[in-house]
Amino acid sequence: MKVCTYVRDGRERLGFISGSELIDARDAAGGNAPEFADMLAFIRSGEAGRKAVETAIAKAPASARVPLASAKLAPPIRPSTMLCSGSNYTDHNKEKANTPISGKEPEFFVKTADCVIGPGEHIIHDEKFTRKLDAETELAIVIGKPGRHIPVERALEHVFGYTIVNDVTARDLQVRTNPQGFTWYEVGRGKCFETSAPTGPWIVTADEIGDPQNLRLRTRINGELRQSASTGNMIFSCAQLIHFFSASMTLKPGMIIITGTPGGTAWSTDPELGGKWVGGDGSEKLVPARGYCKPGDVIECEMEKIGVLRNVVATA
Amino acid sequence: MKVCTYVRDGRERLGFISGSELIDARDAAGGNAPEFADMLAFIRSGEAGRKAVETAIAKAPASARVPLASAKLAPPIRPSTMLCSGSNYTDHNKEKANTPISGKEPEFFVKTADCVIGPGEHIIHDEKFTRKLDAETELAIVIGKPGRHIPVERALEHVFGYTIVNDVTARDLQVRTNPQGFTWYEVGRGKCFETSAPTGPWIVTADEIGDPQNLRLRTRINGELRQSASTGNMIFSCAQLIHFFSASMTLKPGMIIITGTPGGTAWSTDPELGGKWVGGDGSEKLVPARGYCKPGDVIECEMEKIGVLRNVVATA
Repeated sequence: MKVCTYVRDGRERLGFISGSELIDARDAAGGNAPEFADMLAFIRSGEAGRKAVETAIAKAPASARVPLASAKLAPPIRPSTMLCSGSNYTDHNKEKANTPISGKEPEFFVKTADCVIGPGEHIIHDEKFTRKLDAETELAIVIGKPGRHIPVERALEHVFGYTIVNDVTARDLQVRTNPQGFTWYEVGRGKCFETSAPTGPWIVTADEIGDPQNLRLRTRINGELRQSASTGNMIFSCAQLIHFFSASMTLKPGMIIITGTPGGTAWSTDPELGGKWVGGDGSEKLVPARGYCKPGDVIECEMEKIGVLRNVVATA
Repeated sequence: MKVCTYVRDGRERLGFISGSELIDARDAAGGNAPEFADMLAFIRSGEAGRKAVETAIAKAPASARVPLASAKLAPPIRPSTMLCSGSNYTDHNKEKANTPISGKEPEFFVKTADCVIGPGEHIIHDEKFTRKLDAETELAIVIGKPGRHIPVERALEHVFGYTIVNDVTARDLQVRTNPQGFTWYEVGRGKCFETSAPTGPWIVTADEIGDPQNLRLRTRINGELRQSASTGNMIFSCAQLIHFFSASMTLKPGMIIITGTPGGTAWSTDPELGGKWVGGDGSEKLVPARGYCKPGDVIECEMEKIGVLRNVVATA
């Protein structure tokens, strides 16, 4: 099942995607079913909500259907906390020369609802803030069932579904070097800023994804292939990341965990930051970046079984 | 004006504090005034809302008044993003030996609404997560007027009021050392976790605070004085911090900026982390910590002109 949030008459509504159509949840159900109020209510409604939707979709009147192509999609959800893992693909770690990767545990940072934008919204290129704006396609886990200290072997039971997040990064604010030449990450500032978390285009429920470690991930900028890898290349799997982040806080329905990005970012071709072009994991021939994102760039983050999250970079 | 959020019949409501009484906003206004729906609505209502409240309070019937001592306070607000500055008092920086302080810009990290608890709620001591739980009293700025790239000289116009945040920290997860012996901060994980942001007890509007750089701040643990300093000792002032954080994102009504903590944390007496006892800024004689927070500890964060935020540490 593909579930989305879209805008109608200035208000966000829950929708289900069926082929080339978007089916409005409340119109399909013929009323004000509370589980269809919004994405969070639907996630919380669990199996009962899912069954109700299947029935409603099957009987949805024509008036509940609109062409998907004409719908204005919003972020499927605005998580209160977006838990993020850095340095989770070996080829991306190789292209970021001279920075410490601990390896023993995932790297931890967060984004917030204030960073989130939807498909089609502009990623703001604000030269007062950063001159090294970079894109990172990532598989995003949407939590369904709450839990704390979740064991790895039960972790995937807590997943509602998956979406895509472009982990937009300000490289010049992410890396800091002390006078002795030691370089480290200051992931807070370089990761958590306005429009730094394009999210969508929709959520695909876990049953349709199957194994989250077997999805092809690609990034295209202005049509050029910049990243291509399998999510099977993650150092820490989705289940391990759920376990790890659930030690910090109770994972709640609607929270998002993003899972890191593979090689092929603009960092890899930035001599100022010690970048080293690796060329990804060799699965497909990549085009090296020619500098960082600039206004007008079309960024497409693609994930097998989910779709394409597309955003354009624009000046502030 | 002191504004709070409190719980009545299981629901959070907006209240105003007048001496030893709490006045319910809606009961005082005699209806469902939208600006009194909750703290965020009140902050957004601006000067008009403030005036309406003053009128309502003056005429509030006895039925709108309850003794403050009997009210169950909630966090005054749950900010979508809590913007946090590290290393903003010289004496705290001295007690954290061997860690890099850049000095040129504030240190940046964030907490989220999922970290926030109210006055009187338990700070969870979860040994599966951390064995080095530490407390930090901080002046917290509550944003009133939205803005991006706010100039320093106009920054304080964006302040709705001030409250207190205990920037609870997991020291063992905040500091990381690489094999070459270089130590750096990994502030994400050690700062952003469940119950890591006790907030309250209420918000005092900016007009009653006056100069935010002239407030006495104190921390008592089980009655022992651990921190005492003036907010005048901040390296970056409130106005400079507002300017700094507004470069990352549009500051919105209800967002919180926390401003760093002075010397006197448990870190200062931890030889494993290279802590160095400094004794604060010398303004009052402090009692050195005897280890980190443990279950049963009563933590009181006091700020002149605001009050005392009190939380007890409890096992998970």
